[in-house]
Amino acid sequence: MNTISKAAAIGGGVIGAGWVARLLLNGIDVSIFDPDPEATRKVSEVMKGARRAYKQMVPGGLPKEGKLTYAKTIAEAVADADFIQESVPERLDLKHKVLAEIDMHAPANAIIGSSTSGIKPSDMQVAMKNHPERLVVGHPFNPVYLLPIVEIVGGIKTFPEAIEVAKEIYSSIGMKPVVIRKEIEAFVGDRLLEAAWREALWLIKDGICSVEELDDIMRYGFGLRWAQMGMFQVYRIAGGEAGMRHFMAQFGPCLQWPWTKLMDVPEFNDELVDLIAGQSDDQSSKWSIRELEKIRDDNLVAIMDALSKQNKGKGWGAGALYKDYTKQLAALAKPKVSKAAEKAKASKPVKKALKKAPAKKKG
Amino acid sequence: MNTISKAAAIGGGVIGAGWVARLLLNGIDVSIFDPDPEATRKVSEVMKGARRAYKQMVPGGLPKEGKLTYAKTIAEAVADADFIQESVPERLDLKHKVLAEIDMHAPANAIIGSSTSGIKPSDMQVAMKNHPERLVVGHPFNPVYLLPIVEIVGGIKTFPEAIEVAKEIYSSIGMKPVVIRKEIEAFVGDRLLEAAWREALWLIKDGICSVEELDDIMRYGFGLRWAQMGMFQVYRIAGGEAGMRHFMAQFGPCLQWPWTKLMDVPEFNDELVDLIAGQSDDQSSKWSIRELEKIRDDNLVAIMDALSKQNKGKGWGAGALYKDYTKQLAALAKPKVSKAAEKAKASKPVKKALKKAPAKKKG
Repeated sequence: MNTISKAAAIGGGVIGAGWVARLLLNGIDVSIFDPDPEATRKVSEVMKGARRAYKQMVPGGLPKEGKLTYAKTIAEAVADADFIQESVPERLDLKHKVLAEIDMHAPANAIIGSSTSGIKPSDMQVAMKNHPERLVVGHPFNPVYLLPIVEIVGGIKTFPEAIEVAKEIYSSIGMKPVVIRKEIEAFVGDRLLEAAWREALWLIKDGICSVEELDDIMRYGFGLRWAQMGMFQVYRIAGGEAGMRHFMAQFGPCLQWPWTKLMDVPEFNDELVDLIAGQSDDQSSKWSIRELEKIRDDNLVAIMDALSKQNKGKGWGAGALYKDYTKQLAALAKPKVSKAAEKAKASKPVKKALKKAPAKKKG
Repeated sequence: MNTISKAAAIGGGVIGAGWVARLLLNGIDVSIFDPDPEATRKVSEVMKGARRAYKQMVPGGLPKEGKLTYAKTIAEAVADADFIQESVPERLDLKHKVLAEIDMHAPANAIIGSSTSGIKPSDMQVAMKNHPERLVVGHPFNPVYLLPIVEIVGGIKTFPEAIEVAKEIYSSIGMKPVVIRKEIEAFVGDRLLEAAWREALWLIKDGICSVEELDDIMRYGFGLRWAQMGMFQVYRIAGGEAGMRHFMAQFGPCLQWPWTKLMDVPEFNDELVDLIAGQSDDQSSKWSIRELEKIRDDNLVAIMDALSKQNKGKGWGAGALYKDYTKQLAALAKPKVSKAAEKAKASKPVKKALKKAPAKKKG
């Protein structure tokens, strides 16, 4: 049930390579462009980690991997792609340059997703002369090959149909798309992360706790809640039999208490970087980054697998999705129809939806 | 290896009853005082949920439950307790009244833990005329019987030895104590939660997403990361081979971007409460609070159990603790020494540590 048969990845850093891994492991061919001379090595390291995790997820055998091609130019990479994911560094001028080039050379009906974690799609699509209406932000979280969430954001010029097709595409590779209702910088996930990060920097700077202690407070505490319910559903329960209204009446006033470093951001200087990097070494230098990645991936697979057995066997949250996704991968490993027939059928929705795209635009 | 044999709980709300459940299920007798005429029913409901979760955790049989006694006064509840946990509503005047009474009637060597989620221990212990040096904040997270974290905070008058004994006590009932280094309002966990909550209220109020979408972004995304590593260890990995310093250099400048509603808190009015409560109903009203509690508890047990098998079988984070805790409970179910001998031995550390308490105070 892939809705794409050929994808392009522009940028092969941690995020770009994560996309490549997810696509290839779903049997989709990917053409990648990254000018970094180290790109091949970096992508293949991420691929190795992803393959390892997927083997645990689908022990019965994975689908035949898609073919990875290194293109020499953006034009070459996107030439015959159904779907292009852009993951270049977060500078608006660079995004403009790259998106203009993608737009110029990609098939008119190809959907373009940007991995930006903060820039508004409206600010990016101004650089696209041909078909800005098919640009969406498709913002993933690291590791892209395991974490299901993808925030979809449309800009002023984005057609609603492009958002629908993007949802289908991301869903088809096991992801959970959430469409953000109004375009703002940093969308939703990173706004929450940034708020917590800012507060965390204060806590470390002021010597209230170390980075390890802060991490422990998360992973032995509310992190376990947030992995399966979010903030609001958890608080609904905390309200007890009286529910959400009771919770808000009880805790609303806290907003006005002198409880957080509301008004300011910590000065970001060498001293703060040294403090945090040093404490991070104390916490984690016994593991290499590669080892930490493996531990993280094993943990993520184990958590999603555990959640897939909850809720009377139907699975819960990321576990319900994981259940469907691993089933889908297993089925893909034993195809019942010919690959060609499947491809022909699968690539239709993208083309159809964009062909009938009306003049109505998304605000 | 209990270090306490008799505990008292003052306050039997969601948090107080959670403490009662954790203590009873560890075979510790508890005397509770709560003036609420509904207290018996509420505590027994929480106890039912906790018992259900613990049966999943230790399928081979649980320790003999401690005995629960409802006391008519605080004096009666604390009279012969080794350890007292106070969980009354968050009003300083009430905390003063209750702590003064506990202090007056509790054995001189009993440790007193307060469940307050925000009030500084120094501000509370001023009301204690006899032994303010044995007051610590022991701030848990809901559900107390499952989430291991407890933040320990000492006040100006708290003896360092009291903190050590509190750590032992909380550890002995399967918890992960983290001692906060400097006393501030709301400590660490709630500072982070409050920062995220404030940002979340803006996102809902501004119509960027619904409460369900926000929750999904957490539980299909970074919540899965935070359940097993914290924020800093995750970002260390995101820095790639260059680690934490690289991550900070890359993302530090974001602090200055117009990315969060830094300077203000949303106006907390009926409109906002209605908006959020309504969306929460859309998301969750298909489940009763009791059903949601069961789902949450099942998920938490499943996640901790899954993590207990990671890291080459040694367990990881909350899973490593869970492994030890469930082993301990199973062993407690089949005691090798007589209960009396065990009690006599176990209650020593509390008494000894406080007896030799020097004049030195914690800043």
